[in-house]
Amino acid sequence: MSMEIPYKIYLEEKEMPAQWYNVRADMKNKPAPLLNPGTMKPITLDELTPVFCEELARQELDDTTPYIDIPEEIRNFYKMYRPSPLTRAYCLEKALDTPAHIYYKFEGNNTSGSHKLNSAIAQAYYAKQEGLKGVTTETGAGQWGTALSMACSYFDLDCQVYMVKVSYEQKPFRREVMRTYGAKVTPSPSMDTNVGRKINEEFPGTTGSLGCAISEAVEAATTQDGYRYVLGSVLSQVLLHQSIIGLETKTALDKYGIKADMIIGCAGGGSNLGGLISPFAGEILRGEADYQIIAVEPASCPSLTRGSYRYDFCDTGKVCPLAKMYTLGSGFIPSANHAGGLRYHGMSSVVSQLYEDGYVEARSVGQTDVFQAAQQFAKVEGILPAPESSHAIRVAIDEALKCKQTGEAKNIVFGLTGTGYFDMVAYQKFNDGDMTDYIPTDAEIESSLAKLPTI
Amino acid sequence: MSMEIPYKIYLEEKEMPAQWYNVRADMKNKPAPLLNPGTMKPITLDELTPVFCEELARQELDDTTPYIDIPEEIRNFYKMYRPSPLTRAYCLEKALDTPAHIYYKFEGNNTSGSHKLNSAIAQAYYAKQEGLKGVTTETGAGQWGTALSMACSYFDLDCQVYMVKVSYEQKPFRREVMRTYGAKVTPSPSMDTNVGRKINEEFPGTTGSLGCAISEAVEAATTQDGYRYVLGSVLSQVLLHQSIIGLETKTALDKYGIKADMIIGCAGGGSNLGGLISPFAGEILRGEADYQIIAVEPASCPSLTRGSYRYDFCDTGKVCPLAKMYTLGSGFIPSANHAGGLRYHGMSSVVSQLYEDGYVEARSVGQTDVFQAAQQFAKVEGILPAPESSHAIRVAIDEALKCKQTGEAKNIVFGLTGTGYFDMVAYQKFNDGDMTDYIPTDAEIESSLAKLPTI
Repeated sequence: MSMEIPYKIYLEEKEMPAQWYNVRADMKNKPAPLLNPGTMKPITLDELTPVFCEELARQELDDTTPYIDIPEEIRNFYKMYRPSPLTRAYCLEKALDTPAHIYYKFEGNNTSGSHKLNSAIAQAYYAKQEGLKGVTTETGAGQWGTALSMACSYFDLDCQVYMVKVSYEQKPFRREVMRTYGAKVTPSPSMDTNVGRKINEEFPGTTGSLGCAISEAVEAATTQDGYRYVLGSVLSQVLLHQSIIGLETKTALDKYGIKADMIIGCAGGGSNLGGLISPFAGEILRGEADYQIIAVEPASCPSLTRGSYRYDFCDTGKVCPLAKMYTLGSGFIPSANHAGGLRYHGMSSVVSQLYEDGYVEARSVGQTDVFQAAQQFAKVEGILPAPESSHAIRVAIDEALKCKQTGEAKNIVFGLTGTGYFDMVAYQKFNDGDMTDYIPTDAEIESSLAKLPTI
Repeated sequence: MSMEIPYKIYLEEKEMPAQWYNVRADMKNKPAPLLNPGTMKPITLDELTPVFCEELARQELDDTTPYIDIPEEIRNFYKMYRPSPLTRAYCLEKALDTPAHIYYKFEGNNTSGSHKLNSAIAQAYYAKQEGLKGVTTETGAGQWGTALSMACSYFDLDCQVYMVKVSYEQKPFRREVMRTYGAKVTPSPSMDTNVGRKINEEFPGTTGSLGCAISEAVEAATTQDGYRYVLGSVLSQVLLHQSIIGLETKTALDKYGIKADMIIGCAGGGSNLGGLISPFAGEILRGEADYQIIAVEPASCPSLTRGSYRYDFCDTGKVCPLAKMYTLGSGFIPSANHAGGLRYHGMSSVVSQLYEDGYVEARSVGQTDVFQAAQQFAKVEGILPAPESSHAIRVAIDEALKCKQTGEAKNIVFGLTGTGYFDMVAYQKFNDGDMTDYIPTDAEIESSLAKLPTI
């Protein structure tokens, strides 16, 4: 192909995906089923619907339908901030003096600042369709809470967000964005729920964790009429919605005849990574193409590279279903020095199974190295990346530098999940030279895993 | 035309403007010349070059060349974050139930968060071409300083930013973005310059003003070897660079056969408004078309609607050239309750002359009304707008509601200059119901104007 590749590839509206892609349909080894925490047996649709909206529960359990129509109202909302650009990083290539071609799919051009809006709008839509009054959720770094606030505001749904207390206090601006969109934001653990009161009693002065906040949000959903709980990552339904990222990326690459050699994504709960890689993993699974897929996780929370593949609780309060996943143990809390998201103890069961089966490899990277990559990227590509996204940048740069040594002109594609505008406390630490790295010891991880049920 | 109009109109790279448009060339009544503050005579190129880069000084004085080539390196940088989308506000139209068609040109999809980068990259480019070591500037709300930091980082130029002290303290995150891009940020008034020390002595504990910061930056530029001063608004060179906004808007509208009825922009120093309207004003001036053009300014700093058209200093220290402009007097400082930018005492001499000649009309709007419009827009269009941009949103909504009464399907185009992610202190005040409005009295404005020189 001799077509000149522009800096930014924008799809036309008519080229935007009309269906999500469900990679589970093409997996020979399906992700293990969710278990009911009461019976420890595979959970049924009827058991899921008191917590989740019915259509979302159905999507959660569906591992056979490859394509699912995106309802028109969601497609219209997508048109407000999508397609997101696939950008050729010409300036980064030049700065690195690499023969590699680097592309990034940028999901930060919306007010939630990340890809989270892709699933938030879908979940809010189905809640509205079901006639609900509102939804509850948790948020850590704040992107998911912001995205859900925006989505609920659009459909005129009530939105109750339990925000990990340390973030609530350290990120007042995130909180204000959510309030501007009409959400009720409560620091977690709160005194509003049984589980919150219990945690506050047991650990006075605790600054909270994502696992606690999930438990509170689930309790709030199941004790109020007309409410359901929604979650921004980990779940298979979320990966389904996030497949829009990978589908657009694939269409944009195809349009210019570009064959990716590797796909790189940061991985916390797996929502961005899973969405980005789904169509590519599907091609591998169907034997149509081959790609190197790399999940990048923080060295301080290394569920894939140092965790164990087994059943674990999704939340601290043990009210949610159990999932089989690579996990550090649901009691694992990453060091406080770790910035941004990617703090979840486990990994999406879809991504976990693809990793287990060798379709995905994983790398863990240190925090200071990540911020160095973030700054280098920001200076030449003009976007200040989120700390989460910068994990993928780190590995993309490393791979491009390898290409410089070998002379290979590989096509490197990575997911730039969002912007770092609300993470300036971390950037300030980096600018001041005060950033530190923390790597958990083997003993820490072993002790956390030892507390898991044996299933 | 029956072509369906997409939510977002993105130009292709090849459709992007290769030249800036200089509206002064088509003005019969040219803007009055800048005056040398020493001689009070029209300033010459030789007198301007100790302060400004030579090419920029030339652009400042050129009121006859209609089109000026955009150098290739600048066009390449533009390709990283441009073309900016022209968005059809379908959701806002639906929420307002108006027959009007509303379009906005969104300039916030870059890390500076605003249109300011369009001129920053041009000014940094010419500084680099001239072999300078670096540039100095001032910043108030912080968008301009951030944009210039990004541009200087790209061309490896030193960047020294004098940031109004109140913003430096209240917007530490803006400061950190600039530092991440390698800029040196100094709170103004500082003790580093003569003018800063003098102001600190005269007004102990002052939190600074844009006029003071300009004076400090100019002094810093003229007392260091290899430095020049750059400014982000007001100047005619800045409007020239910002014409990219209007040119892209015009091309996008033409592509779909849309004839704008009115163009609305917020107006502080006039850089966004001037850039947005330039090609449209050019058509009016050449007798080719007619548009209603509306400049929207804050009621707390109403230079066009309540100021006087006369020569004034551009800065508090009176070291800059004088410009003939609509002004509230260079000593005027807007009430501290006013959020965001649009705090400058005067208005671009180009915009002032177009207003004087009746090509542009002006409206002033109150702060609470502006934030109401901002929130309404954010909820349906998914973008949290900057307080500055929200002035234009306010009037666009007002005009769309008038169309609802009259049944007219007008095409309303407005400039959405940027995002409000660093303005959450103001949004918090609004969310808490603590926002107040302030309108200066006639006596305040008269007393400020009475201090101006008679020319």
